[in-house]
Amino acid sequence: MKKIAILGSTGSIGTQTLEVIENQRDIEVTALAAGSNIRLLEEQIRKFKPKLACVWKAEKARELAVLVKDLPVRIVSGMEGLIEAATEESADIVVTAVVGMIGIRPTIAAMEAGKDIALANKETLVTAGHIIMPLAEERGVKILPVDSEHSAIFQCLNGENKDTIHKILLTASGGPFRGKTRAELQSVQVEDALKHPNWSMGRKITIDSSTMVNKGLEVIEAKWLFGVEMDQVEVVVQPKSVIHSMVEFEDGAVMAQLGTPDMKLPIQYALYYPERRFLPGGRLDFWTIGQIAFEKPDMVNFPGLSLAYRAGNTGGTLPAIFNAANERAVAKFLNREISYLSITDMIEGAMNGHTVKENPTVQEILDAEAEAYEYIESRW
Amino acid sequence: MKKIAILGSTGSIGTQTLEVIENQRDIEVTALAAGSNIRLLEEQIRKFKPKLACVWKAEKARELAVLVKDLPVRIVSGMEGLIEAATEESADIVVTAVVGMIGIRPTIAAMEAGKDIALANKETLVTAGHIIMPLAEERGVKILPVDSEHSAIFQCLNGENKDTIHKILLTASGGPFRGKTRAELQSVQVEDALKHPNWSMGRKITIDSSTMVNKGLEVIEAKWLFGVEMDQVEVVVQPKSVIHSMVEFEDGAVMAQLGTPDMKLPIQYALYYPERRFLPGGRLDFWTIGQIAFEKPDMVNFPGLSLAYRAGNTGGTLPAIFNAANERAVAKFLNREISYLSITDMIEGAMNGHTVKENPTVQEILDAEAEAYEYIESRW
Repeated sequence: MKKIAILGSTGSIGTQTLEVIENQRDIEVTALAAGSNIRLLEEQIRKFKPKLACVWKAEKARELAVLVKDLPVRIVSGMEGLIEAATEESADIVVTAVVGMIGIRPTIAAMEAGKDIALANKETLVTAGHIIMPLAEERGVKILPVDSEHSAIFQCLNGENKDTIHKILLTASGGPFRGKTRAELQSVQVEDALKHPNWSMGRKITIDSSTMVNKGLEVIEAKWLFGVEMDQVEVVVQPKSVIHSMVEFEDGAVMAQLGTPDMKLPIQYALYYPERRFLPGGRLDFWTIGQIAFEKPDMVNFPGLSLAYRAGNTGGTLPAIFNAANERAVAKFLNREISYLSITDMIEGAMNGHTVKENPTVQEILDAEAEAYEYIESRW
Repeated sequence: MKKIAILGSTGSIGTQTLEVIENQRDIEVTALAAGSNIRLLEEQIRKFKPKLACVWKAEKARELAVLVKDLPVRIVSGMEGLIEAATEESADIVVTAVVGMIGIRPTIAAMEAGKDIALANKETLVTAGHIIMPLAEERGVKILPVDSEHSAIFQCLNGENKDTIHKILLTASGGPFRGKTRAELQSVQVEDALKHPNWSMGRKITIDSSTMVNKGLEVIEAKWLFGVEMDQVEVVVQPKSVIHSMVEFEDGAVMAQLGTPDMKLPIQYALYYPERRFLPGGRLDFWTIGQIAFEKPDMVNFPGLSLAYRAGNTGGTLPAIFNAANERAVAKFLNREISYLSITDMIEGAMNGHTVKENPTVQEILDAEAEAYEYIESRW
């Protein structure tokens, strides 16, 4: 039986991963890690019986320990605990579904322990792709994308030779504000930005989708994951999100993966790759879809995407700045401290003020993160 | 160096196969076979220097022998010659691009000689799939589809397990008469039917596309090639022919292959499978495409497709009747002897009058063909 550890088990990807496992019934959960939702984590522990559970905050971990004292589960906390969960001896695969650059160290630790990674944490590759990808090669571990778009590309590459990729066509819904000008975006409120047309996701990623920053992070991630240049990744806006992404090969053939907006598909694909299994849920109906339209992304009114290309092309610590500035700016927007347009303005400001360090270590990446946080606190 | 024999070298697929070979420069042509175009065949012999060349008609073969008497090429003719070309000792792959049921015997002979088949002859699988597929399994030879739709499906199945196919979505342009009623089709002339909206092909297949009989043949072919039931093959009309076909898997994922309408892509893919190589030519431009629309096929005004489902579901000799009746009827239409709508009326009549023989031998298939020919001659 396959054994799995899930980092971020109470989030959107974490809970859906557990749904897939519950449905398939042939994967054993050996470790779970969550941020602070100990009520849900307790439920998950009772149902899936992991050996180890981690809660980010120590005091919450102590609370959880009391709640599950009748069970043979060890409770740990903090980064040390997260790394322990990531390296739990018996796990074959680690699902890294924590949000933020907090995912880097546990991912590296899991890889060093020889575990395959089902990667749902964007920040890891965006900021540390130059460390992660060579490490995967060196340790012979698989990086299995869980993101819908990257899973689509990964599925398109099944049985193919990566060297024959001409370009990657990363699809984007365009978000709830597609077609709007910057002037029109000035008055956007939190509630507006949280309405994604197709996908139901966490709050931070939903905002990132509306600003196209999410697509930008995905472009950088794709560059690392599939070993291509930034300019080989082209964003194609396709409002219905029917095509989850495409790959054009050297012979001109374009392979595409299409599906309903159900994250359980890429999750299950990553867990059982290369095997496909029946997955309950909706199916694409081409008569209902009617048509699929394509548009160029609007890089002028949505500078989040062009900033991402700049960050990805420059490399070094700049993607970490791009990501961390966005993370903090989005938090401030969700907290109603800043306006919607300030999100990308803040990212640009942080990038402009940064002196890029090439080929950074994990510590240098985390220092860049701290610098971006500080920049944003000091400015707004 | 890979060695190849091409049956039907002067036709549309044959000449494009030679273009691919000329461009790649690492395949040796060992045998060529043509119907009657000895002028073009002579050119091909001079350029590609095969050891053997076959001309269907004996008198034309004698003419050719005179034309190329300065070259070390042996000239043969008739079915015996075609089989000799198909089994030419040094060939690794045989491209079967002859039109009609004439392709069955040479294909079987080539497979028995252990050669992989790049299959461009629809009739072989449509009428003799129950013989061809088990033989391929038994001899361990590959059947590599050259047809654009089947190549697309084949590409979608790259790295996948056929047992996880839920259904095949075979795309169709709908032809030049999409949206027309039978009343409107009554006055169709040969010139109208020869105007295919997207693909430039031979005359017979262009007429077949306009009646949807071609799509019907493709559905039956797909059933054999990919080991599915007829009702697992769904026809999706997609007027721009951008998506060349799709496969829906058990997990709900749909893989699609998209491309420009260039037969050199599936030809090259078959010749070098699973390798992809640079292919000069146009590329898909999603901004120009704008949108891809989907429609249900019109089985009422285009009974060619429903007749094909009936033939494929019944099996036995019925697909041979369907195919042969169509072949003869189309010839009569192209010869302006019958009206456009009579094509499918003739097919239906031939099918209704036939007593199906299950699991027929090649001879019984050819007898069914003769019966259909006779039926049509006697009726019109």
